[in-house]
Amino acid sequence: VNVIALTVEYDGTRYRGFQVQHVGPTIQEEIESALARLMGVPIRIVAAGRTDAGVHATGQVVSFGTTRAMPVTVIQRALNAHLPSDIVVTDVREKPSDFHARFSARHREYRYSICNRRIRPVIGGQYVYHVSRHLEVNSMAEACEHLVGEHDFASFAGTGSGDRPSSTVRTLRKAICDRHGDLVTFDLEANAFLPHMVRNVVGTMLLVGTGRLRAEQVRDILCRRDRRFAGQMAPARGLCLTHVTY
Amino acid sequence: VNVIALTVEYDGTRYRGFQVQHVGPTIQEEIESALARLMGVPIRIVAAGRTDAGVHATGQVVSFGTTRAMPVTVIQRALNAHLPSDIVVTDVREKPSDFHARFSARHREYRYSICNRRIRPVIGGQYVYHVSRHLEVNSMAEACEHLVGEHDFASFAGTGSGDRPSSTVRTLRKAICDRHGDLVTFDLEANAFLPHMVRNVVGTMLLVGTGRLRAEQVRDILCRRDRRFAGQMAPARGLCLTHVTY
Repeated sequence: VNVIALTVEYDGTRYRGFQVQHVGPTIQEEIESALARLMGVPIRIVAAGRTDAGVHATGQVVSFGTTRAMPVTVIQRALNAHLPSDIVVTDVREKPSDFHARFSARHREYRYSICNRRIRPVIGGQYVYHVSRHLEVNSMAEACEHLVGEHDFASFAGTGSGDRPSSTVRTLRKAICDRHGDLVTFDLEANAFLPHMVRNVVGTMLLVGTGRLRAEQVRDILCRRDRRFAGQMAPARGLCLTHVTY
Repeated sequence: VNVIALTVEYDGTRYRGFQVQHVGPTIQEEIESALARLMGVPIRIVAAGRTDAGVHATGQVVSFGTTRAMPVTVIQRALNAHLPSDIVVTDVREKPSDFHARFSARHREYRYSICNRRIRPVIGGQYVYHVSRHLEVNSMAEACEHLVGEHDFASFAGTGSGDRPSSTVRTLRKAICDRHGDLVTFDLEANAFLPHMVRNVVGTMLLVGTGRLRAEQVRDILCRRDRRFAGQMAPARGLCLTHVTY
């Protein structure tokens, strides 16, 4: 069996998320259907991150096994011809037979983007969350530092749609908040993320950025290990899976 | 009569252009209909740049006269409530009674954006033109310099949809080509632009960037004053009216 890894970019706006659901189109269905047309047999893929409905990706990784030998350039060209205009395969590689897009991943990186101005955004509006109240980026950057390291992130864990994780301990390697004009970004990297974790962290950071919470209180929220103490989940449209490290 | 100027941002993807046409929705219609709802009477607007179908704007300026006295903040809030999600008013100002968005404008600035990678773009794909062949930005930047100054731009003049301009002489104040990763941008500023001028200039630059034309040949094309010598018009999706100076 040959194991193939695809790097995939998608605009998640019109999808019900990555994973196959009962209702509505998913990224997984589109990729599996393009693969089935190419390979002539049904193929099941696994993904590094099962992104929610409306979440985007520039660096999602999926893998699958096949008995057919086919050059990676042929696979890429054929898939991109079959895939809809909001999904594209940016890279195709042959992998060792024990490679698994989800279980072999060592780190995932997400970016959350906020348009922070009084007026609603128009250009690129589907990739940002609009916050009209001014955000104090320095306070949010300071609050982010309290989350870096190995912690029990139960306070930031959503229930998600999948299986409940057995442990809520994760190692956050990076949590950076920055501003470029009206654009406020959060870049978070961890060994793995709990369901809705990035969006719950961002929702909590917004309380800090608007002065309703002090930066050091984020540390207390983390220690509580109780979802009720963190902020409201930020919307899906601002979130993007940017990179997976193996 | 009070004269009001609006700065407008729009995603031109689903419009037939700025100006009212026989078929299909236009930016002008949307703004005039929002103004009519607010003011209770039909209002005719004029724009600094009559952008073509599919062209975007972050800094379009429109003006109109009204006998109603209304605070600019009220006008802005009401218009943005009435306008569709792909059009937004980012600024409203009272102007002297002789102000005219088109005739008072001293300079217009446009940006043209190209996604220069092998794979088709997905995130933000409606704001860029996809060119898969590698573009030599240094050559294009050099070629741009030949166009700066007061020249007869007849070689780059399209027929457009409006009246034929009486003269094809324009003063190009700035023509800069730059690369940021896969993104190649052209920033052009002139006293005014001929119909399709930016897109015809970019189409010609692409011949330079792919080595089919030497940078200095752009100077010859300019001197010919004949549309047949310049490159093909680049598509509308990459073009954005970014700023108008008064």
